[in-house]
Amino acid sequence: METTAGTPEGVSRRGFLTRVGAVGGATALYGTMEALGLIASPAHAAEEAGDFQELRPNDLPAAANGTKVAILGAGTAGLAVAYELGKAGYDCHVIEARSKPGGRALTIRRGDKLTDTDGVTQVCKFDEGHYYNAGPSRIPSHHLTIDYCRELGVAIEPMVNANAQGYYFHENTPTVNYGPLASTAVTHRQAKADVYGYISELLASAVDQGALDDRLTGTDGQRLIELVNSLGGLTGGRYTGNNRRGYSVTPGAGNEPGTVAGPPPGLSDILQSQFGTRFATEFGFDQAMMMWQPVGGMDQISAALASAVGGRRRITYDAPVTQIDNTSTGVRVSYRSNGRIRTLDADYCVVTIPPMVLRNLTTNFSAETKNALTVPTGANSGRMGIQFKRRFWEEDLDIYGGVTHTNMDVSGIYYPSYGYFQKKGVLVGYYSGSYTNLSVAERETRALAQGAKIHGDVYHQEFDNSFSVAWPKEPYSLGAWVSWPGGRGAAYQHLLQADGNTYFAGDHLSYYTAWQTGAFLSARKVVSDLHARVAATAA
Amino acid sequence: METTAGTPEGVSRRGFLTRVGAVGGATALYGTMEALGLIASPAHAAEEAGDFQELRPNDLPAAANGTKVAILGAGTAGLAVAYELGKAGYDCHVIEARSKPGGRALTIRRGDKLTDTDGVTQVCKFDEGHYYNAGPSRIPSHHLTIDYCRELGVAIEPMVNANAQGYYFHENTPTVNYGPLASTAVTHRQAKADVYGYISELLASAVDQGALDDRLTGTDGQRLIELVNSLGGLTGGRYTGNNRRGYSVTPGAGNEPGTVAGPPPGLSDILQSQFGTRFATEFGFDQAMMMWQPVGGMDQISAALASAVGGRRRITYDAPVTQIDNTSTGVRVSYRSNGRIRTLDADYCVVTIPPMVLRNLTTNFSAETKNALTVPTGANSGRMGIQFKRRFWEEDLDIYGGVTHTNMDVSGIYYPSYGYFQKKGVLVGYYSGSYTNLSVAERETRALAQGAKIHGDVYHQEFDNSFSVAWPKEPYSLGAWVSWPGGRGAAYQHLLQADGNTYFAGDHLSYYTAWQTGAFLSARKVVSDLHARVAATAA
Repeated sequence: METTAGTPEGVSRRGFLTRVGAVGGATALYGTMEALGLIASPAHAAEEAGDFQELRPNDLPAAANGTKVAILGAGTAGLAVAYELGKAGYDCHVIEARSKPGGRALTIRRGDKLTDTDGVTQVCKFDEGHYYNAGPSRIPSHHLTIDYCRELGVAIEPMVNANAQGYYFHENTPTVNYGPLASTAVTHRQAKADVYGYISELLASAVDQGALDDRLTGTDGQRLIELVNSLGGLTGGRYTGNNRRGYSVTPGAGNEPGTVAGPPPGLSDILQSQFGTRFATEFGFDQAMMMWQPVGGMDQISAALASAVGGRRRITYDAPVTQIDNTSTGVRVSYRSNGRIRTLDADYCVVTIPPMVLRNLTTNFSAETKNALTVPTGANSGRMGIQFKRRFWEEDLDIYGGVTHTNMDVSGIYYPSYGYFQKKGVLVGYYSGSYTNLSVAERETRALAQGAKIHGDVYHQEFDNSFSVAWPKEPYSLGAWVSWPGGRGAAYQHLLQADGNTYFAGDHLSYYTAWQTGAFLSARKVVSDLHARVAATAA
Repeated sequence: METTAGTPEGVSRRGFLTRVGAVGGATALYGTMEALGLIASPAHAAEEAGDFQELRPNDLPAAANGTKVAILGAGTAGLAVAYELGKAGYDCHVIEARSKPGGRALTIRRGDKLTDTDGVTQVCKFDEGHYYNAGPSRIPSHHLTIDYCRELGVAIEPMVNANAQGYYFHENTPTVNYGPLASTAVTHRQAKADVYGYISELLASAVDQGALDDRLTGTDGQRLIELVNSLGGLTGGRYTGNNRRGYSVTPGAGNEPGTVAGPPPGLSDILQSQFGTRFATEFGFDQAMMMWQPVGGMDQISAALASAVGGRRRITYDAPVTQIDNTSTGVRVSYRSNGRIRTLDADYCVVTIPPMVLRNLTTNFSAETKNALTVPTGANSGRMGIQFKRRFWEEDLDIYGGVTHTNMDVSGIYYPSYGYFQKKGVLVGYYSGSYTNLSVAERETRALAQGAKIHGDVYHQEFDNSFSVAWPKEPYSLGAWVSWPGGRGAAYQHLLQADGNTYFAGDHLSYYTAWQTGAFLSARKVVSDLHARVAATAA
């Protein structure tokens, strides 16, 4: 799962570095990468990181040698803390409730088993090689996550977050009538041609009438006309459709010039469809293409981080924390492992357990901390992966990756951005909180019924099996992400500070909630805070 | 080069089928694929192909067994003819002037050597594993080319034809002043935010003034306002910038909400920049993402086709055709091989040699055919691949694949859509006819100078080496593609018909000039025409 033809250097590098990391931990790994010249651009890394000063092997003062840090949670934040502190030789140990790293950066594959808070257990029946990312699933080009992939040798590939062949599908609701295009699957390609065509025509008309004269000076009006003629593909100032919509008969050999699909619906129908209100998603700072994913699943990042910090030498899995106590000399963490309660004493502790889980543990945190932990709420969302016996979206519809956006409760159908041309495939059938309180069987029935409204009977005929994750019911997450009711107020501010020797980290303590880059950013901040304190104490 | 983690089935399938094809040719290959259930969707293939009826092993009448077809040119069209005729058991032999298959579907790698019509020889010095496609470089999701990739087991990966991190760069010309944004590299992300912001504001203003009342009925006006508020990211009906432009300080951990880059340039400056006139490219029927490329280079398709038809058993390389004669019983082809002239007699001939080359050969074609061949002209274009010692576009600018569009004579800079995170990289430094008549050294000097206007000194500092292909100077192409002055007139019509037992095929005989799908479409048409004649003759 870790090789790709496109990155031969990455393949051998990854394998080598994983072994170095497993044997020698982050310090050895970092030194090796530095020696090999693999850490390409420290200047850029610093820029990306704001004011983060990456720790180096000699940064830990001699007086602080052996400083021990307990890190609670082997998700992205916890592993990043261990990885970055490890670069300076901190003695890190990570305690993780689950049996593998990653936390919500969860890739679901054959044999994976999840038991939710209702006690319901699912076992994944996907074929080997097929998977979906139940948590974070896309990485914008500018996120720190990309830099960590580079540093750790995790190969990336495009995550198709927009595709002209994907559909828009709006179903009438009790309050909204979408007009003649309601319950019609329209390709992004066609919707864009029509919306940009008509708004361009309207602008041209307004300019012609002189309605914008007070806004347009000099040759602005002429330039605007040139712009909208191009943007809308207008003919004589009017939108009458064009080949951006696609063809009903595609151009061919000999004497087949093709027949453009058309004519387009009227202006009023296009406006009533409201497809155009969805275009802005693609302009989003964190949604615009190109977007990326690790080759082989999002959990390849946490797998690489876990290897880099030293693997099971430094991470204890299947170990739910039960108690956290600041002590006179540091922190004592209690956790359940192999049927008994064990303790870990450390000089410092970094807690990445989500507040919704953490507030249920026994701690001697201050009253203010305990109160702050009650404030955030767990967001309701989840995803279903559906395996189909045939990639009908590729074979029949020319949809290779991408998204169908809908106002139905599935929210979107995400076609897989890997495994093109394979026979079977796993798509994401919903990304929604609307399925959380349905039974596993009801989720499947409903998701298939909704998908069939868009894709027709093939959605039932080619169905193979499904697996769904409802994050509010995942016992060690209790939410898809953290919401701060009323905004980042006093509780947020309080948790940015250490309670005794205990620090808090996670994407919920950043302005990048629900993104892995937020976990990395928060981890780096805590690493800086903790290291500054250690350095000051040792001085 | 042929494996990718995303398509494990494709890997073994490809390897296996290549061996089957090499041993047994297209018939064995096709039968094997059919038996394995790998020909997934004949219905779709037929739909894609218009009225093409794919030949099957029993389609060749017994009376026509052994029908021999000489195919001139092992580019996409010629190989496709051999492949499709081979499915019915035609005895095909391909004669190719170059030493490998693909024709203009040319991928340039280390050690490749080209001698142009001026006698100038270049040898490629790229590092192993780096390459660029000098001819066709992108495949839309709906092209036949994708279906052939699936059928042949050629793995595909996204070709990044649009990326929010790419730039627009407009330099003033003697006749056009682009205003304050002239000679400024502006990200697609930022240009889109600004252009869509302002045109949305203008539309909102026009609606408010009632200027569009005659076009908008009922609630259309209100819906249009909702649309442009969303599309432009307006605040109180005005465009004042927003985070779609990007950040000057990105959001971070703790108390760093980020600082949006801004304020935006004024409306007049944005109009004068003319960046918005470039957006429509991304809506093009054949340019809209998602676009694709074979993993490992475009020539993987012709390599797979060449294997599928039987390799060197059925293809003679290094064999420029010198003469073609229709005879009383078929066709006689003369070609130069190993220093002497050899002949090949066949029942039929399919000529895919470009008209600009073909018209210089000795033939006994009719006067009308000879005249028709003089009409088309070779298009002037070419590409330079530039290897850089460091992928500064990724490391410094977060550009992973994609295009910088410019009005300078380089036309565009295409960042590689493979090998992400590697140290070195090969980008396409121009896609232009403006460099054809420069010396190889002058091309390099000029392309670097132009690129440096966009990317700065790093473009010189990290430069490693370059390789350029000028298609009009490639002796067996004499043009990047074929132009039909005055349109597809009498000459085009004439060449759609056989001259005696000789047929003509190529993308130039389709409505998809310069696209591989045009070559496939033309090949299929000739296969159908020829087979119908053979079947009628045998009956």
